[in-house]
Amino acid sequence: MPELRQEPITGNWVIIATERNKRPSDFPARHEERNGGTCPFCKGNEKLTPPEITAYREPGTHPDEPGWWIRVVPNKFPALDNNSADLAIRHNFYTGMNGTGAHEVIVESPEHDQSLEQHDPAQMREIFWAWRDRHRALMARAPIRYVQIFKNEGAIAGASLEHPHSQVIATPLIPTVIENELEGAKSFFVDRGTCPYCEMIAHEEAVGDRLIAGNKQFVAFCPYASRFPFEITILPRRHLADFSGLDDSMLEDLSAIVKVTMQKLTASLSRPPYNLTLHTAPAGFAEAPYYHWRLEILPRLTIMAGFEWGTGIYINPTSPESAAKYLRETAI
Amino acid sequence: MPELRQEPITGNWVIIATERNKRPSDFPARHEERNGGTCPFCKGNEKLTPPEITAYREPGTHPDEPGWWIRVVPNKFPALDNNSADLAIRHNFYTGMNGTGAHEVIVESPEHDQSLEQHDPAQMREIFWAWRDRHRALMARAPIRYVQIFKNEGAIAGASLEHPHSQVIATPLIPTVIENELEGAKSFFVDRGTCPYCEMIAHEEAVGDRLIAGNKQFVAFCPYASRFPFEITILPRRHLADFSGLDDSMLEDLSAIVKVTMQKLTASLSRPPYNLTLHTAPAGFAEAPYYHWRLEILPRLTIMAGFEWGTGIYINPTSPESAAKYLRETAI
Repeated sequence: MPELRQEPITGNWVIIATERNKRPSDFPARHEERNGGTCPFCKGNEKLTPPEITAYREPGTHPDEPGWWIRVVPNKFPALDNNSADLAIRHNFYTGMNGTGAHEVIVESPEHDQSLEQHDPAQMREIFWAWRDRHRALMARAPIRYVQIFKNEGAIAGASLEHPHSQVIATPLIPTVIENELEGAKSFFVDRGTCPYCEMIAHEEAVGDRLIAGNKQFVAFCPYASRFPFEITILPRRHLADFSGLDDSMLEDLSAIVKVTMQKLTASLSRPPYNLTLHTAPAGFAEAPYYHWRLEILPRLTIMAGFEWGTGIYINPTSPESAAKYLRETAI
Repeated sequence: MPELRQEPITGNWVIIATERNKRPSDFPARHEERNGGTCPFCKGNEKLTPPEITAYREPGTHPDEPGWWIRVVPNKFPALDNNSADLAIRHNFYTGMNGTGAHEVIVESPEHDQSLEQHDPAQMREIFWAWRDRHRALMARAPIRYVQIFKNEGAIAGASLEHPHSQVIATPLIPTVIENELEGAKSFFVDRGTCPYCEMIAHEEAVGDRLIAGNKQFVAFCPYASRFPFEITILPRRHLADFSGLDDSMLEDLSAIVKVTMQKLTASLSRPPYNLTLHTAPAGFAEAPYYHWRLEILPRLTIMAGFEWGTGIYINPTSPESAAKYLRETAI
C-alpha cells in the first residue's frame, strides 16, 4: 500500500509507493534506455494491460480488443490506488495517511509513433474529451479532492513508455502547488476584485511580446516568470476555475491551440522532451471567482540542480520574450 | 544583466539570466556529454578561470598559480552578479528586480578525479572551512539576504564540469523554499515552544529506523517524507540556525559525517549523480529559536515529471526506512 507523508515544516506531501520499492541495483546509471520489444499500448496488445476502464471504440468491437482510438487503462504500477477504505490521518511526530486515490493511463492513439502534434484535429479533440471524461469521473468519487492530468514525452521528461499517452492521478488531498496558487490568487482577488489569470491574459495581450498563438477561446504565451526555456502557458479566455466545466466548443478550440503550439515547439526544438500539466480547481473550488484552469508545457532542456532544490528559484537561460518571439515566428 | 522575476500567484522567484541566452539550436538533444579536453579547475590551468577570489595555498605561492589546495573563483557565467547598484523593485502587472548578487565556484581539490568522499579528513575540513568562509563574507555584503551553497555531482545532476567543485550563489532576497521553512518552523515553535528540527533529531534517534550515521555533533538520516530514493538529511545536534556560526570543532565533526555518509552512498549506488544543498538562516534570522541549518543530499535516481511539476508531490519508489537500513548496513 503506498503511503502519503507530509513534510512537517513546509507542509509538502510525498507519496511513498513501496509497490515500486527499488534496491540500489535496480537503478540504471542513466535513464536514457528506451523500450524495445512489445509495446503494451499498441493495438493488438490490449491483453498486456490491466482491463480497460473505458475506451472510445468502433461499434461492435469489444473491450480489451482492437477497434478503439482512445483507451483508458489502470496504471500497472499505481502511485495511488483505491484499495483502502482507511482514510485516517496518522500522527506521531509526523503526519501521514494511506495512499488512496487512482492512477490511470490514457492511451492517445493506437499508433506507436503518433506524437501529440501529429494527430488530426478530430483525434486531438478526442484526447481532451477523454481528459475531461476522466476528470469528471474521478472528481465525483470520494475521497478524491484533486485530479492531476499530465503527459511526459521523452525519457528525460520521465516517460517510461514511448507510445503516446497521458496519465491521470487522483489524490485525496489538495496538492501544495494548487493550494499555494489558490491562496495567492485569492489574495489578489481580495485586493483588486478580479481573477489574476483573467488580468494576466489582458496584460499579455496588451504587451504582446510573450504571445505565441491565440484563437477565439484560448491564448498561448511564455509566462513572465518562466522557470524553463520555452515554457508555455495556455489559458482559456473565459473565466473558468474547473477544467471539467469546459464545453464542446471550448474542447474544439483547446485542441486547435495545443496542436498549433506543439507544432511550433516541435519544429523549433526538434521534438524536445517535455511535461504537459493541467492545473485546475480542486473539489469545492469549481466556482472560485479567483482561480482559472490552465495548461503548462514544460520543455526539459535544462537540469534542475542544487540551487533550484535549495531555493526554489529556477535559473532560466532563455528569456520568455525571446522564446515567444522564436515560437511566434516559427512557420508550421 | 540577469533579472529576478516573481510569479504573481505563488510568489516564487526565477532568474532570467540572459547572459546565457540560448537559441533552440544551442540545446543538445541530451545532457550527457562530459567535458573532454582541458579542465579549467585543474592545477596548472589557473589562467583559464577569472582571477581567484581567495585560495588556501602554500606560503610563497602566488594567486592564480599552482600551490593551492582550495581555490575560489567567480563563476564565468554568473546566474547573479554584483554589477548593479539599482535594487529598485519594478512593478507593472508583474514584479521584478535586477539580478544582483554573486556566483562563485569553490574548487575542492587540485586533482581532477578526487570525489568528495575520497578526500582525506584534513581536505574535507578545508572544503567546509571554505564554505563557511564564503558564507560569512557574502552574508556581510549588502544587499545580500541569502547565500546558497550547493554541489552538483554528475551530468544528470546538472554538473557541467567534472572536476570536484561546489558553488555559491548569493541572492538579494529570501528564497521561497527558505521562507516556507521559516514560516512552518515558526508556527511549530509558536504551538509547542521548541525548534522542530531539534524535535526531529530527538524523534529520529528514538525511533532509529531512518538513521544512517551519527557522531558527537551531527546525525545523518533519511527524512520521513523523503522526496527521492536515498535522500539524506544531515543535522547538527546543537541548535544553530546559521551555518556561519559553526565552530572549528563542529567543522571537524561535519567533515567526518559527510565523509562517512558519502562513502556509504557511493558504495551503495556505485557513485550516483547527486545534489548537495545547504539550508541555513537568511539575513536577520541567525538567532531564530525555531530554525536549524542542515545539509540535504539528493541522489538523482528518479526523474521529476508532470505529476511532480503539477502538484509539488514527489513519487518516491524507495521508502526512507529501507534506504536507511541499506546505507546503515553498507560497510565502508
